[in-house]
Amino acid sequence: MNAQNIYDDPDFQAGYVTLDRQVRGLDGASEWPVLRSLLPDLEGRRVVDLGCGFGWFSRWADEHHAASVLGLDLSTKMLDRARTDTASATVEYRRSDLDVLDLDPGSAEVVFSSLTLHYVQHLDRLLETIALSLTPGGSLVFSVEHPILSAPSIQGFETSATGDRFWKLDNYLVEGERVRTWFVDGVVKQHRTVATYVNSVVGSGLTIERLVEWGPTAVDVEVRPELADDLHRPWFLLLAALKPGNQHR
Amino acid sequence: MNAQNIYDDPDFQAGYVTLDRQVRGLDGASEWPVLRSLLPDLEGRRVVDLGCGFGWFSRWADEHHAASVLGLDLSTKMLDRARTDTASATVEYRRSDLDVLDLDPGSAEVVFSSLTLHYVQHLDRLLETIALSLTPGGSLVFSVEHPILSAPSIQGFETSATGDRFWKLDNYLVEGERVRTWFVDGVVKQHRTVATYVNSVVGSGLTIERLVEWGPTAVDVEVRPELADDLHRPWFLLLAALKPGNQHR
Repeated sequence: MNAQNIYDDPDFQAGYVTLDRQVRGLDGASEWPVLRSLLPDLEGRRVVDLGCGFGWFSRWADEHHAASVLGLDLSTKMLDRARTDTASATVEYRRSDLDVLDLDPGSAEVVFSSLTLHYVQHLDRLLETIALSLTPGGSLVFSVEHPILSAPSIQGFETSATGDRFWKLDNYLVEGERVRTWFVDGVVKQHRTVATYVNSVVGSGLTIERLVEWGPTAVDVEVRPELADDLHRPWFLLLAALKPGNQHR
Repeated sequence: MNAQNIYDDPDFQAGYVTLDRQVRGLDGASEWPVLRSLLPDLEGRRVVDLGCGFGWFSRWADEHHAASVLGLDLSTKMLDRARTDTASATVEYRRSDLDVLDLDPGSAEVVFSSLTLHYVQHLDRLLETIALSLTPGGSLVFSVEHPILSAPSIQGFETSATGDRFWKLDNYLVEGERVRTWFVDGVVKQHRTVATYVNSVVGSGLTIERLVEWGPTAVDVEVRPELADDLHRPWFLLLAALKPGNQHR
């Protein structure tokens, strides 16, 4: 296991469990309705959940769509709770380092990953593994921190002399590690450009179906003015891709 | 003709012709080597050049690859000079507004466009026209101003109190018109997100082959330190897409 396992750090966990999306699950994740809209029909499908965490998505796919789910995560603490919270024989959780993962070829119709791939060091290797694991017509749907969010040396907004707010963007084209403070110091994420995500997916043999740069809409900001800054840069990059071949849908 | 025709403005032209890429042609365009690398084999192909300007690309495709080229532009001044500079029976120039363009179905193996589509108001319509005009296996290759460059209300870098340089990014998620001063006031460009460009291409039935967020490399900056700011945000978005079907290459 060569990947960082910050998720088993007690101080990190103490903060992490307070996040709305960990308290309320999928309904606490603002991007979930859009991410869900990118998914194919999951009914009775074999689904792999990369970075399953507490198993929110794995359970949802099982309970709502009778999918057979394999949830993978590096954190034993998260897997322990996922197992405790899941009462289904068709969901299996397994400890796994995505940087050295192997999956059986043709073993899944859907591979899903929420906010995990920006921790992976060897993205091309993982995408090749994913592409091989999918049956023809199968889908990959994932979200990551948006590269505009992950790029800067110091993340934040600033106000100009004229009162305009803007996101301080630097080093967008400089890919590599970014070390952040998020509940604890030393959280390591991999910054990649949008083009790198797209080209890595294409390079794995999958076909890009849809890209979403997720943030609030102008209507969202009318209802919740405190979101105004979030029109300046997206939070998440969502991507849906297909393995060429017969369609499942 | 409902598109803006700033390129026929004498004051605009006076400035525009001084650009390195208008003085030296393709070799004066820093992104040209990468853009060229996205092109398929042009040998003997039928090529459409959308926003051909002075015809630099049209002539190159004709002279170096014996392509038959249809160069389209809104500016009569640019077309006049393109015709004067071109001595080939296999290059034709035609005045055209890309917002209402029709092309014959199956009439081209390659559609090319350099730094033009960010002026187009009806991108989806144009992409459908392009997709129809391509033969199966045909290619679309284009460049536009990168959305990170085109988004801000005021374009520029700033220096923080600690001496760090950054690009002032705002309104990335707010698509629509941006009015710039570029040689003259009132140059109107359309800001779209990267996702919109990708999804519009996919929606037209083409398959994304490669995306490039063009800027200098770290090596470029070592040689030319004055480019350091340009690592903070890309200049151009380059995209290559294929029409599904038999390959030409």
